[in-house]
Amino acid sequence: MSDFSSWAARIQARAESTLDALLPPEDVAPARLHAAMRYAILGGGKRVRPLLAHGAGELFGAAAERVDLAAAAVEMIHAYSLIHDDMPCMDDDDLRRGKPSCHKQFDDATALLAGDALQSLAFQTLAQPGLCGDAARQTRMIHLLATASGSRGMAGGQAIDLASVGLNLSQQELEFMHIHKTGALIRAAVLLGAHCADAPDAEKLRAADRYAKNIGLAFQVVDDILDAEADTVTLGKTAGKDAKNNKPTYVTILGLARAREFAAELHADAVADIAPFGDAGRRLTQLADFITGRSF
Amino acid sequence: MSDFSSWAARIQARAESTLDALLPPEDVAPARLHAAMRYAILGGGKRVRPLLAHGAGELFGAAAERVDLAAAAVEMIHAYSLIHDDMPCMDDDDLRRGKPSCHKQFDDATALLAGDALQSLAFQTLAQPGLCGDAARQTRMIHLLATASGSRGMAGGQAIDLASVGLNLSQQELEFMHIHKTGALIRAAVLLGAHCADAPDAEKLRAADRYAKNIGLAFQVVDDILDAEADTVTLGKTAGKDAKNNKPTYVTILGLARAREFAAELHADAVADIAPFGDAGRRLTQLADFITGRSF
Repeated sequence: MSDFSSWAARIQARAESTLDALLPPEDVAPARLHAAMRYAILGGGKRVRPLLAHGAGELFGAAAERVDLAAAAVEMIHAYSLIHDDMPCMDDDDLRRGKPSCHKQFDDATALLAGDALQSLAFQTLAQPGLCGDAARQTRMIHLLATASGSRGMAGGQAIDLASVGLNLSQQELEFMHIHKTGALIRAAVLLGAHCADAPDAEKLRAADRYAKNIGLAFQVVDDILDAEADTVTLGKTAGKDAKNNKPTYVTILGLARAREFAAELHADAVADIAPFGDAGRRLTQLADFITGRSF
Repeated sequence: MSDFSSWAARIQARAESTLDALLPPEDVAPARLHAAMRYAILGGGKRVRPLLAHGAGELFGAAAERVDLAAAAVEMIHAYSLIHDDMPCMDDDDLRRGKPSCHKQFDDATALLAGDALQSLAFQTLAQPGLCGDAARQTRMIHLLATASGSRGMAGGQAIDLASVGLNLSQQELEFMHIHKTGALIRAAVLLGAHCADAPDAEKLRAADRYAKNIGLAFQVVDDILDAEADTVTLGKTAGKDAKNNKPTYVTILGLARAREFAAELHADAVADIAPFGDAGRRLTQLADFITGRSF
């Protein structure tokens, strides 16, 4: 196992146990709601956002115990968005991470509420006393996650995504959508990890932000490539659904070859953003490789 | 116009203009999502939670400008819950505040996202720099609202409500549901208003909390009475839907006469909680009258 793989496995295990501890147990009322929340967030996923939060935490020298909480909050927002995104009135997807999606395993109403409650729990987690030594910075972290999640962040990106079905978007319009839909939360993961440090350097924060923007976009380009290429078993979710749903993707707009080149360019930019910080940026560099090299 | 009515009208106008200013304009992308958010929260509602927040703010001597923001955050959570509650997979209600409910006016996906984004905006609002002089207290306020909104607060109460359809609940079980579904957010409104003060007195906070619990339950008992009695035009939402949906209510469990008595008892307790604080508690006392006397 490479140095990176063992680090990633360790972070993934930390993310799992942090989430397990933060989520109410299934035997606490309302039991079915708690079961649905746990079902949707535990035991799966690559934990890309927690990995990024911890990678940034290491760049800034943040305590890993603080980053665990910030990473869990971001992952809760991500998990809630997947629950709602899979629902019949949205993407209507029966499969998620190789398992029935939340509304298939439970029911639509429970899935709706499980997503809602996971969003609340994200902010409850980020507002925990002592998450950050400086309460004013903690408040700014909450503001950052809320903005990244809302109508001008992730939820807004989903709305643009819905409205784009069947349209011929330009690359610029597609980028606008993804910067919101996926990019905002990836960026929040990196910045929240950084802000867990006691006094994050402003110049370094700007570099981490540029890295996060490049890697967020790269993540989506790669996702589009994988969706176009992979079969359902490898992907763990319904493959080719973008084409099926007549959604514009980087592959439909750029073609497969140019989409791969674009991902490689974004990767190079992200790595360059972090390069000045030497060994402290090692995990973020490896994560850039991991995210863009996932299976090609 | 009575002294109370003119005060309430003033607060309602403040709530409207605060929300109007906090919500992104309709001409900002994604326009349809912003239109749906604004549709669901502006121009209607009794603003019971902002009234309670300001009533508590006056008891504790908080600056009204701060309370405006806390009240808006609570109202956003309330509005998001109504949007989701009306959706086909939940109560499937076409009417809200005398208008088509959000998913009827727009569509299910837009309504789902509008609710999601309103929840994010609530936390973004409460995390605004300077909302509270003391950042550590502000963090606790955010934690309080998140807890009140989540699986052990409002969303949990809705889950219990769903699970109770067709069941014969005891009064105790019904109370457990409503303490979560409606009570948690009413309580948050009062406590957040109080916490906008610079140094809220602990004893007074406990009294305000008792008041909030009594008035939260009274609010629900009265709501059940109104639902059983009123016609759709007066109520501005579909009347008698609890009976139609075979949901247990205070009226089905206690009968109409005893439900009225119970509301009166809760009102008396709430007023007694506030009585020791004299004139500063005037608005909360009037609000107890207003909430329990709504139309009977």
